[in-house]
Amino acid sequence: MPPQPGATDISVESVTDTTSVVLPDPIETVVNGVGHLPLAIKDIHGHRSRSGPMPSGVAPYVSADMFKSPASFEKPKAKRWDHWISQESSSRTGSSIKKAAKYLKKPGLITLGGGLPSCDYFPFERIDVKVPVAPHFSEQEVLESGIVRTAGKHDIRNGKSLYDLEVCLNYGQATGSAQLIRFVTEHTEIVHKPPYADWWCILTAGSVSALEMCLRMLCTRGDYLLTEEYAFATTLEAAAPLGLRTVGIRMDKEGMLADDLDHVLTGWDELERGRPKPFVLYTVPTGQNPTGATQSCERRQAIYAIAEKHDLCIVEDDPYYFLQMEDYAPGRIHSTAEMERMPHDEYLNTLIPSYLSMDTSGRVIRLDSFSKIIAPGARAGWITGAEQLIERFARHAEVSTQTPSGISQIILYKLLEETWGHDGFLEWLRYIRSEYTRRRDNIVAACENHLPQEIASWNPPMAGMFHWINIKWHKHPKFHKDPSTTNLKKVEESIFQAAIEKGVLCSLGSWFRAQKDTDTEIFLRTTFAAAPLDRIEEAISRLGEALREEFQNGEANGIGQGANGHGS
Amino acid sequence: MPPQPGATDISVESVTDTTSVVLPDPIETVVNGVGHLPLAIKDIHGHRSRSGPMPSGVAPYVSADMFKSPASFEKPKAKRWDHWISQESSSRTGSSIKKAAKYLKKPGLITLGGGLPSCDYFPFERIDVKVPVAPHFSEQEVLESGIVRTAGKHDIRNGKSLYDLEVCLNYGQATGSAQLIRFVTEHTEIVHKPPYADWWCILTAGSVSALEMCLRMLCTRGDYLLTEEYAFATTLEAAAPLGLRTVGIRMDKEGMLADDLDHVLTGWDELERGRPKPFVLYTVPTGQNPTGATQSCERRQAIYAIAEKHDLCIVEDDPYYFLQMEDYAPGRIHSTAEMERMPHDEYLNTLIPSYLSMDTSGRVIRLDSFSKIIAPGARAGWITGAEQLIERFARHAEVSTQTPSGISQIILYKLLEETWGHDGFLEWLRYIRSEYTRRRDNIVAACENHLPQEIASWNPPMAGMFHWINIKWHKHPKFHKDPSTTNLKKVEESIFQAAIEKGVLCSLGSWFRAQKDTDTEIFLRTTFAAAPLDRIEEAISRLGEALREEFQNGEANGIGQGANGHGS
Repeated sequence: MPPQPGATDISVESVTDTTSVVLPDPIETVVNGVGHLPLAIKDIHGHRSRSGPMPSGVAPYVSADMFKSPASFEKPKAKRWDHWISQESSSRTGSSIKKAAKYLKKPGLITLGGGLPSCDYFPFERIDVKVPVAPHFSEQEVLESGIVRTAGKHDIRNGKSLYDLEVCLNYGQATGSAQLIRFVTEHTEIVHKPPYADWWCILTAGSVSALEMCLRMLCTRGDYLLTEEYAFATTLEAAAPLGLRTVGIRMDKEGMLADDLDHVLTGWDELERGRPKPFVLYTVPTGQNPTGATQSCERRQAIYAIAEKHDLCIVEDDPYYFLQMEDYAPGRIHSTAEMERMPHDEYLNTLIPSYLSMDTSGRVIRLDSFSKIIAPGARAGWITGAEQLIERFARHAEVSTQTPSGISQIILYKLLEETWGHDGFLEWLRYIRSEYTRRRDNIVAACENHLPQEIASWNPPMAGMFHWINIKWHKHPKFHKDPSTTNLKKVEESIFQAAIEKGVLCSLGSWFRAQKDTDTEIFLRTTFAAAPLDRIEEAISRLGEALREEFQNGEANGIGQGANGHGS
Repeated sequence: MPPQPGATDISVESVTDTTSVVLPDPIETVVNGVGHLPLAIKDIHGHRSRSGPMPSGVAPYVSADMFKSPASFEKPKAKRWDHWISQESSSRTGSSIKKAAKYLKKPGLITLGGGLPSCDYFPFERIDVKVPVAPHFSEQEVLESGIVRTAGKHDIRNGKSLYDLEVCLNYGQATGSAQLIRFVTEHTEIVHKPPYADWWCILTAGSVSALEMCLRMLCTRGDYLLTEEYAFATTLEAAAPLGLRTVGIRMDKEGMLADDLDHVLTGWDELERGRPKPFVLYTVPTGQNPTGATQSCERRQAIYAIAEKHDLCIVEDDPYYFLQMEDYAPGRIHSTAEMERMPHDEYLNTLIPSYLSMDTSGRVIRLDSFSKIIAPGARAGWITGAEQLIERFARHAEVSTQTPSGISQIILYKLLEETWGHDGFLEWLRYIRSEYTRRRDNIVAACENHLPQEIASWNPPMAGMFHWINIKWHKHPKFHKDPSTTNLKKVEESIFQAAIEKGVLCSLGSWFRAQKDTDTEIFLRTTFAAAPLDRIEEAISRLGEALREEFQNGEANGIGQGANGHGS
């Protein structure tokens, strides 16, 4: 067993004897004497039956190792990353109170140690939640066929459930509850099959929180951080106050360019930059925010090779992984019914592999989030990576976020574990992927119909929520052959205001520029996730009008109607 | 209106026009031409009816100012604290995306700006929660008379509620939801009546998270932090990795000594210490963890005066404020029925005033938590302080925790707002206070009955969850007239192991020592919050046995039975 990630103060109350956890029997399930098969959904039941019982007390010790399959443990271990860990993170020590938790194993012991409230004083007897049964996911279907799941206060002691209000409403471990850790660990193994042995999953209070904690674990004031040249604005806003400077790596329609990454690192001049070569690479590989770009498998392999060459830690922020779409086909709007219904295992093989899935060294920290696939308000996600790094992360969580809301956790458990299972969850993920595909098709078709293509161009997004539109600003009457960023910003603002005037709000590309004020092009970020479909078409139509009026010398520049002439 | 605390990316989706907020009419409710009366529970209805409508969209802008009474605004403003704010905190800037939120006021605007998921894809139709109706709070009563509150997906648009799943399951502002901010702002004003005008409340993801964020807002690596000489272990563990050094202020049975605080600061030798005089004072004034000490009103006034003299920021971590108890009377166990039932206003006057309530300068940052009064698993609390500081805090939250779980928030809203109201909430707080009083009475009586009072002594706690027991270690056979900390630690460990051997786990005082390895006394921290009452008595009885056997030369030292001779 690896070292414990550190029980919190409250773990003193744990009533679970962790020595009783039965690790999978490596003999029983060996296949052909060459090792175990990777975990698949069909194996979950058998795998669980060979594992130890679910810890049942308040804030018990839990580790992903309890829930990984035998195949996981047969792989080589991750490399060691001592040289990456910041002073802040490396100085986190375990506390005496936490260490005292080991005495809870003593039979009959009464603890006066931990300051947990008694569940007598939690003013909730029951929480019920009405959820869809797979595959009847639409709002209308849930009304008709959704079922109500109930979480009672004492369901565990009454044998009704493995999780209840008595546990979820009290303090929990920084890992998150055992009940939910089991689910996300199995899910992660089934989907990503990390190719090294000592990976861990723990829950996070959402990926924004987790990212900031990762930056503090890895970086020091003055360091450089590698990102896409256009990057998630919140990441930039989290990094800057920590004194981190950003190096934006150039992108094409597949996102970050491996060559430019190599070029920047190979040519790094420590004297000129005043700082050693950066080693933290933040990337959103799938449906990137803001550009919508999705890195192909080959691109990811190339970037991973650069990471190996330059010893980079890849922070893979991947909330849109399951919003991967089929190719956009002009004139064709996908309907849910059209989406093929191949078996899950086959479907998973169609997804572009994550960095985690190719990470033989253990240098990837993967951030998953429930925000884009269940609900942002849950404020919950999970982080996966080498035990050495995740243990440091957990130690930080103990003195900050502690754990996601227990109420969020039990609601997610009722949905994912007690209603859907892994099968139903994948069914759901495929459902929302098809919904977002329809929305993507819709916005791209609207652009084809309503935007003047002489000045607006785009690549149909292959994942996520964002459609990124390039504006040929040298055709703008205010361009005046002045390509300076200052002039660009003026034109950008003028376009932004013109769009507002017509009644549509877009985000400007410069807001996401990793290295501020180095813009040479104008982009608009639009989202197809939020507004109703008909409003999206109307919004794009208004944007088309605004662009035409802005580029008023259109005739001279060859600016006419949209392809289908709807844009007047 | 003060500057906005900064809408997040997602605020672009806000549909609330903040210009429509009607501030209270200062004329209508002026009393005798000398100003408004302080807000009281009975005024809430009228106060609300004179305020603007509750913001109803997803992630609308919200400020405590929308919910404060006219009396609040008549007070002088807080001082400015620019000199306190760390480099990290002062460099947090607003983002362009957030600023774009102002355009949402434009009628008919369609936004493609913010990346919020559509609520069509939240797989929850309804969440129900069964809660007690005041004053029928016990588990048995809730079974019989509790009522079920329902949160539907579209309750706002259907006119059923001011809060619903569509809103709480989406992204929210860093302030927390308007619906819950209103409640905690009114509660804070009713209970603490901050004596300056520009105070703000916003929600936190629990006080541990909030405290770490405060340390980052105020402190810089190398700084000193002022705390009680025995302090909440998690605070010490959060501060140390930030490079903060702790100065423990001496305590008596009323907690931190004002004289010692003044002495430390007046005599601060910057050269010797290598750092300027510290200005952040962390204190748990009520039922302190670990000592259980409660600062009297006079003590607080004296410490506040020192804070004024030395320009200190007081971080008032006060989760046990409502667990204030009546005096312990030997031989008398309070019963719930015995607790007096005075009117709430009168009852509030019996509580020791908080630092916030005496804070004319705006130098107090108060941390409130739902953990000890509702449930720790909610991972929610609130922070109150000068707008200048709370705005900085909110800006940090935007790029880290963002907001407490929306599911926690709506459950709390259903309980606090739609079931209890302020009256019922105070009723509940008085109920759990009486429950904890019974538990306090029980553990103290058990100590009187079972501990050898020649070696164990205590002050009955007046609040909170902890009972702190002093052990006269110079009577221990291993003392050998060696009062060194090293020897003390050996004796402490020996007592700890002896207690384990007898079947009781306590926490050791040295684990909480602010300046490690400076112990001159031995203490045990016990909690009366968690275990059933009969188990607590049994545990104390075992502790008594352990102490007697440890101090085996008892006869020579005059160590006999407990007062009532039950300790054999």
